[in-house]
Amino acid sequence: MAFKTLSAANAAALDKDLMSVGAFSIDQLMELAGLSVSQAVYRVHPPSRGRRVLVACGPGNNGGDGLVAARHLWNYGYTPTVYYPKQSKNELYQRLATQLKDLSVPFTTDFSASLQETDHVVDAIFGFSFSSPLREPFPSVITALENTKIPVTAVDAPSSWDIEKGPPSEGPGAKFMPDFLVSLTAPKPLVGWFTGRHFLGGRFVSPGIARKYNLDLPEYDGVDQIVELGKNGEKL
Amino acid sequence: MAFKTLSAANAAALDKDLMSVGAFSIDQLMELAGLSVSQAVYRVHPPSRGRRVLVACGPGNNGGDGLVAARHLWNYGYTPTVYYPKQSKNELYQRLATQLKDLSVPFTTDFSASLQETDHVVDAIFGFSFSSPLREPFPSVITALENTKIPVTAVDAPSSWDIEKGPPSEGPGAKFMPDFLVSLTAPKPLVGWFTGRHFLGGRFVSPGIARKYNLDLPEYDGVDQIVELGKNGEKL
Repeated sequence: MAFKTLSAANAAALDKDLMSVGAFSIDQLMELAGLSVSQAVYRVHPPSRGRRVLVACGPGNNGGDGLVAARHLWNYGYTPTVYYPKQSKNELYQRLATQLKDLSVPFTTDFSASLQETDHVVDAIFGFSFSSPLREPFPSVITALENTKIPVTAVDAPSSWDIEKGPPSEGPGAKFMPDFLVSLTAPKPLVGWFTGRHFLGGRFVSPGIARKYNLDLPEYDGVDQIVELGKNGEKL
Repeated sequence: MAFKTLSAANAAALDKDLMSVGAFSIDQLMELAGLSVSQAVYRVHPPSRGRRVLVACGPGNNGGDGLVAARHLWNYGYTPTVYYPKQSKNELYQRLATQLKDLSVPFTTDFSASLQETDHVVDAIFGFSFSSPLREPFPSVITALENTKIPVTAVDAPSSWDIEKGPPSEGPGAKFMPDFLVSLTAPKPLVGWFTGRHFLGGRFVSPGIARKYNLDLPEYDGVDQIVELGKNGEKL
């Protein structure tokens, strides 16, 4: 790797530190992470290019970030549709889903059909805690993402990719290359295989935590919740 | 009033609705409210005008918004100092204070001395739930804010003002006129007495809640968490 990244194990440990030493609640962190994702989508695909955004949410924290992003996108004037096939019983995720229903954001159960009727896709299926194999219904969803011409923004990781080893060597995801990636808190090793536009989000890492994990984070501009990175991790 | 405002009782009821029907947690709402405040400060007083910001926090939710704003201001490159004389035992506020301590943000106990060494002040002492009289140590703090030449941004209400009747007729606050005001969720009737630059923040009110409280909220631009309003409540 040309720049410092955060292993899957360290990403999990950093998240724990944010909530223990850092005293953040998961509500706060997810709100800010999802806000970052929504700002990246606005940057790469402003509403003038098409307001329809399909947000695919997995069962865990990555999906929660997607639910938050969908709400902010609605606030920005997009018309999001949410695909959330494995809804968590966790109270936080239930509340995030209710917040969307209160805005009359539609939830779809047919990913392929919805993919025919959108202008942009957010892949919030799996993040840094993913490990193979993909379980139903996600293999076909990943295959659809792999083959679509619609631009895709991935949250923290292109879903199906190994956090440290990149795309799988075969099967769903082997040829999946999202157009845009938003790394949260810090880039993971998989960015070495990623060829699209890369953003960093999650503007809540303290200098103490950055030092502990040997991170060399770029400066964000102004009030931005995202910063675009070049191939060597430098700020663009 | 030339435009629709939210009474103190309705502001409290709307907050309850956001957390019941809207399914928001107070962590989420406070994070977004404090983020709005930080963006307003950045707009009216960018770091190039002086990085020192004194954030005065009261014992309740308005103080919590201030604590969140101070953290985001630190992220933007300011050097905030926090005055928080009546620290709540509430777990959320304690966590918000810990988040600042983790960034080595100093807490001062001498408001007057700190006021001599700052470039901007955030008044997050009292919000829509304020009712007179002011209790110690706040009368002298309000008097200091009233007399300072340093620009002040007030959160939701100039502290000491009655939410519906504006500034008190005499005593501390009678001549308090902050330069900037950030109304959260919707303007309160006190804006009729306010002569400075006025922003709206708290971009999380659903159309259903806006209808219920007969609010006529302006549109925010892009990903902004604030919108500036004119004298008649129109978007500037």
